[in-house]
Amino acid sequence: MISEKIFVRLGNLYDVSGRVINFSAGPSALPVEIFPALERGIRYADAEIGVMELSHRSPEYEAIHADARERLRRLLAVPESHEILLMQGGATQQFGQIAMQFGPGAYVVNGSWGEKAYEAARAWHGDRVRRRTVGAPDYRESWSPSDGDDFGGDDRSGQCAYRHMTTNETIQGVQTREDPDRPAVADMSSDILTRRLDWSRYRLAYAGAQKNLGPSGVTVVVIEREFMADERADVPEYFRYGAHAKAGSLLNTPPTWSIFVLREVLRHWESVGGIAHLEAQAVARSERLYGIIDASEGFFEGHARPWARSRMNVTFRLPSPELTRAFLTGAEAQGMVGLAGHRSVGGVRASLYNACPMEWVEALGEWMTEFVRRPGSRVTA
Amino acid sequence: MISEKIFVRLGNLYDVSGRVINFSAGPSALPVEIFPALERGIRYADAEIGVMELSHRSPEYEAIHADARERLRRLLAVPESHEILLMQGGATQQFGQIAMQFGPGAYVVNGSWGEKAYEAARAWHGDRVRRRTVGAPDYRESWSPSDGDDFGGDDRSGQCAYRHMTTNETIQGVQTREDPDRPAVADMSSDILTRRLDWSRYRLAYAGAQKNLGPSGVTVVVIEREFMADERADVPEYFRYGAHAKAGSLLNTPPTWSIFVLREVLRHWESVGGIAHLEAQAVARSERLYGIIDASEGFFEGHARPWARSRMNVTFRLPSPELTRAFLTGAEAQGMVGLAGHRSVGGVRASLYNACPMEWVEALGEWMTEFVRRPGSRVTA
Repeated sequence: MISEKIFVRLGNLYDVSGRVINFSAGPSALPVEIFPALERGIRYADAEIGVMELSHRSPEYEAIHADARERLRRLLAVPESHEILLMQGGATQQFGQIAMQFGPGAYVVNGSWGEKAYEAARAWHGDRVRRRTVGAPDYRESWSPSDGDDFGGDDRSGQCAYRHMTTNETIQGVQTREDPDRPAVADMSSDILTRRLDWSRYRLAYAGAQKNLGPSGVTVVVIEREFMADERADVPEYFRYGAHAKAGSLLNTPPTWSIFVLREVLRHWESVGGIAHLEAQAVARSERLYGIIDASEGFFEGHARPWARSRMNVTFRLPSPELTRAFLTGAEAQGMVGLAGHRSVGGVRASLYNACPMEWVEALGEWMTEFVRRPGSRVTA
Repeated sequence: MISEKIFVRLGNLYDVSGRVINFSAGPSALPVEIFPALERGIRYADAEIGVMELSHRSPEYEAIHADARERLRRLLAVPESHEILLMQGGATQQFGQIAMQFGPGAYVVNGSWGEKAYEAARAWHGDRVRRRTVGAPDYRESWSPSDGDDFGGDDRSGQCAYRHMTTNETIQGVQTREDPDRPAVADMSSDILTRRLDWSRYRLAYAGAQKNLGPSGVTVVVIEREFMADERADVPEYFRYGAHAKAGSLLNTPPTWSIFVLREVLRHWESVGGIAHLEAQAVARSERLYGIIDASEGFFEGHARPWARSRMNVTFRLPSPELTRAFLTGAEAQGMVGLAGHRSVGGVRASLYNACPMEWVEALGEWMTEFVRRPGSRVTA
């Protein structure tokens, strides 16, 4: 948990700009460069009307909406074979809706979120849902498509309607960066827009925006048109991907402010170099911390196997619960928040999404390096 | 549609504060008093961390979340027999989810939104869904519970799982302000928090926030615990009201900014007098315009029957399409937007939600009065 005092104290923070150093697993930091645009968006055009006050049928909002979708297509290099939808409810709603709409699938499970996706599918289809578990119960492994999946054959041959994977598991900090050998449905909630993708390998990808794309409240769905045509039609319109596609994601009132912020974030990422820049930053951030872990002679123990390490969530343990507490307390005193590991894994988790400046990673890296050398650290261990 | 020029022009607006006079059917105006708090929320506490950047598991966000729910309970006077949930997807998702979770219902339909709710239920349950239509096809009538509903007996006796009504139809501008004689499920999207309710008459009420409560992106659901216990359990967690209730509406990442703005709006409504104030304002706003319609000797023709008139959406026609266009163009030139009627009804629609200042209603009223007297108005008619 984040200590209350961090938020009332105004000085003495590590970040020279006075911002809290935010390693939350999401929602997390936004790029600081877009704040002036967001502030203007509250009242829009010198007090005439705020973005939140615009009708979703007004040309002004429709321009924001279209621009967000176009920027997603450009930044993610999505081909015309796939639709881009802006939806609500996060990945958790997608878990249920995908299984509802496409029938029983086959699930590769290598972490907590993959388990949740599988359980949602089982709620609809019971034992007809197939599962290949990788690295249970502590989930330190990624899934390599070249290792196979035991499902056999094409995933649309009738054995199962689709194959589902989770590209990044935030809780365990394991990531699959290899595109699947056969087209898959993928939960990309925590690593979308951090590497190039081969879209011919994805039938459907989905991501809540609140980690790498912007604020919570909007969910990005990229869906192959051919796959979308196979969905159930005998459900209410709102649950049909095709209905959202046909309406340009304006089937009903969208989360207009979240989409506005998403657009501002995307505009910023484009201006600084797009996906190539974002991928390079993700590599640099995560390698900095994994380097310190590897150089610590076992003082910091990474949760993920080295080959399975996530660029998004760096998970590690210290030699004892007392040292973990001391490490987290010291980090908080320096203005770093969101570092406690998920309760199911414990230890420390640093989430390093697109808007995390290298300066913040350096601050954490310095604290890790200093902490190892502190008198008492080795003794207590 | 809103003309582009309104939004680039900066001077010469009717509202002395320089704001556009916003009569949109939703999203619509926010109370201007909360803008400073929203601007601070972008960066929060002098640049430490923005509200959108807070983890939804942080004590800071959890305090906002709890406060929004508590203020809803106080302002709406919701008894402990009912849960208050903050969800996503708007009324349209509720149409589908209610029918999915509670089985075939009986629908009172007296406008376009009631039709949509009915159609969503039919998608799940086909002919098992019952319907009582009031005032079709042009829907100028409200539904009076004392007129009966043809459904017979108690709505949970097995004939149908629930009875559904739409308290305010935004497109036609008709409103049912009488609480139902037997407990109902009610779409209150466009008139929640504008009058006192007897909650013993409602099993479930739902409303997108973007009309009377705040921004789009969050849906308020008030659900009777006893009714909730009857929902289906064999669906994914996300579709179960009980799962959201158990998790305090933090089942997954909520739309944090929309809930923050909702909280700020509710805080403001409490500070100015709560529901009594809001109801008095709604009466004053709508009576001002209906008074002009009634005094116009038929020049303005209201769509709703006088006894069915909505306090939220005042719908009326002028004697000809040419006069309607001239009226709307003149209104736009004075900085009034969102007045064109829905394409299915035509004419003019003024949406008067909680954040619409009386000053804006006066501006429209003066323009209506002036327009009737213009040379040519009567001639063209």
